[in-house]
Amino acid sequence: MAAERRDKEAFVTLVTSDSYSFGALVLGQSLRAVHTTRKLAILVTPQVSDNVREQLGKVYDDVHLVDVVDSGDTEKLALLSRPELGITFTKLHCWRLTNYTKAVFLDADTLVLRNVDDLFDKEELSAVPDIGWPDCFNSGVFVFRPSEDTYQALLQCAKTAGSFDGGDQGLLNTFFSDWGTKDISRHLSFLYNMTSTIHYSYLPAFNRFGGDVKIVHFIGPIKPWHHQYDTKSGTVKPHPNQDSSLPPHHMDFLQAWWDVFMNRVKPLLEGQGQLLSGNH
Amino acid sequence: MAAERRDKEAFVTLVTSDSYSFGALVLGQSLRAVHTTRKLAILVTPQVSDNVREQLGKVYDDVHLVDVVDSGDTEKLALLSRPELGITFTKLHCWRLTNYTKAVFLDADTLVLRNVDDLFDKEELSAVPDIGWPDCFNSGVFVFRPSEDTYQALLQCAKTAGSFDGGDQGLLNTFFSDWGTKDISRHLSFLYNMTSTIHYSYLPAFNRFGGDVKIVHFIGPIKPWHHQYDTKSGTVKPHPNQDSSLPPHHMDFLQAWWDVFMNRVKPLLEGQGQLLSGNH
Ligand SMILES: O=c1ccn([C@@H]2O[C@H](COP(=O)(O)OP(=O)(O)O)[C@@H](O)[C@H]2O)c(=O)[nH]1
Ligand SMILES: O=c1ccn([C@@H]2O[C@H](COP(=O)(O)OP(=O)(O)O)[C@@H](O)[C@H]2O)c(=O)[nH]1
Ligand SMILES: [Mn+2]
Ligand SMILES: [Mn+2]
Repeated sequence: MAAERRDKEAFVTLVTSDSYSFGALVLGQSLRAVHTTRKLAILVTPQVSDNVREQLGKVYDDVHLVDVVDSGDTEKLALLSRPELGITFTKLHCWRLTNYTKAVFLDADTLVLRNVDDLFDKEELSAVPDIGWPDCFNSGVFVFRPSEDTYQALLQCAKTAGSFDGGDQGLLNTFFSDWGTKDISRHLSFLYNMTSTIHYSYLPAFNRFGGDVKIVHFIGPIKPWHHQYDTKSGTVKPHPNQDSSLPPHHMDFLQAWWDVFMNRVKPLLEGQGQLLSGNH
Repeated sequence: MAAERRDKEAFVTLVTSDSYSFGALVLGQSLRAVHTTRKLAILVTPQVSDNVREQLGKVYDDVHLVDVVDSGDTEKLALLSRPELGITFTKLHCWRLTNYTKAVFLDADTLVLRNVDDLFDKEELSAVPDIGWPDCFNSGVFVFRPSEDTYQALLQCAKTAGSFDGGDQGLLNTFFSDWGTKDISRHLSFLYNMTSTIHYSYLPAFNRFGGDVKIVHFIGPIKPWHHQYDTKSGTVKPHPNQDSSLPPHHMDFLQAWWDVFMNRVKPLLEGQGQLLSGNH
């Protein structure tokens, strides 16, 4: 792999708050832990405090300040029961990172368990089927090609067609509407965006294939950083609002997230006089 | 469409009990209601009573008596929390229906809402991603090519590799293991095997695409025929054990199932002195 190409490819994430920055710090360090050879880039909005931006700069090669883009579509977001997700339109800015020729977007609530640099061999738009409606892709992990033209076309699509879920996923699936039917090589394995669920067919399949999970995605309103961590025992405690019917191995993934936080993020932050401030 | 070809293609289902036969009668009549031009075939095991077999013969062109094949894998079935599904290995018999050149298997708990004869243009093995683990297909609806050789190979696979979920789905996904990666045309739209779920991304997608649903699949332990029906008001009543967080439109699909039962199945059964007997 030529160094030239490597420098033109990046993993990209997004944070619009100090709270999601916990996720981004862990995500970035999880990518370093599996020895990615690609750049790490992050989009941050003005709501992220200066202090936190500085901390993100210790993990990410590029910290890009962008404006918030919000769908403002409260009606559709109510269907998702996730009023906060209008702001995920800000994700579209990732197409403006044209100093990269190829990029992989990862939600800030993902954790990388194995090297996934092979994703850069895939083309725009490659992604994993969404488990709610598998004709659509989940927009938490996707391969794309930065392009100002595509960015403008996406904004246009946002204005004309809008998003059927009020968030980025509805919009991106409208824009890349042939994903479901055109090319099997753009369908990534579930192992690249694995979510624990209570669906009864999940558990036997997890037992069969789960050893190969590469990226776990902590979807839903309760994020790993909302859980409590017992420093004495070094273990994460279940969140009181977490769905109690989630499979037991879900706690192992949460523990893996916290292990990265304690071993690879907290040490970076020390000497700052304080840990990450702000709400979480 | 030449009549010749039509006679060599069939929808196929399976029942191993009088209870599931309610589903098969409704399924068969739902196919007639959308004017399918193909044959209807059903596999029945000796547990299905003579009386019920006769009733099935009024809806299905071919009623095939087959032996039960059971995975007997109680350990893996416990993961599914569905001890009863070992018997679904009996499904494999559908490959022996070699008087047909192409066939579409439909679980007895499916309901056809629109004509789906276009499925016969697809090749073996075409199916819809499973919402628990979308690298696998759901085995409730699939296009296949009857063949004694394939049947023997499937039996061999059952003996050597076994089924990772103890049911037919785990076995079929092991046998047709390139489904996820080989050919996009073998990935059917979710509209051909739509299941209502509580996953938060389901509802906005349903509102966008749900008007085009062709086949609804009533997965899980509570089947439409377990619900109660109020003959006075002509409406189905929610089952006490049904997940109360299922979306409201799920009741519309249950109502559609019962409408077929009341309008197109019950009249067939009258004059029999009794409705379907047996457990349900
Ligand atoms: O208030 C927010 C909400 C979302 N995000 C970003 O948008 C992504 C998508 O939102 P989220 O992961 O909460 O959605 P889910 O995966 O739960 O559907 C997050 O991972 C973050 O990268 C953010 O920065 N701030
Ligand atoms: O006791 C049983 C269990 C299953 N089946 C057949 O096998 C299919 C698969 O089982 P089910 O639909 O209950 O599984 P699910 O779709 O809920 O996973 C059914 O639709 C029936 O055709 C049957 O005849 N008797
Ligand atoms: Mn996410
Ligand atoms: Mn079924």
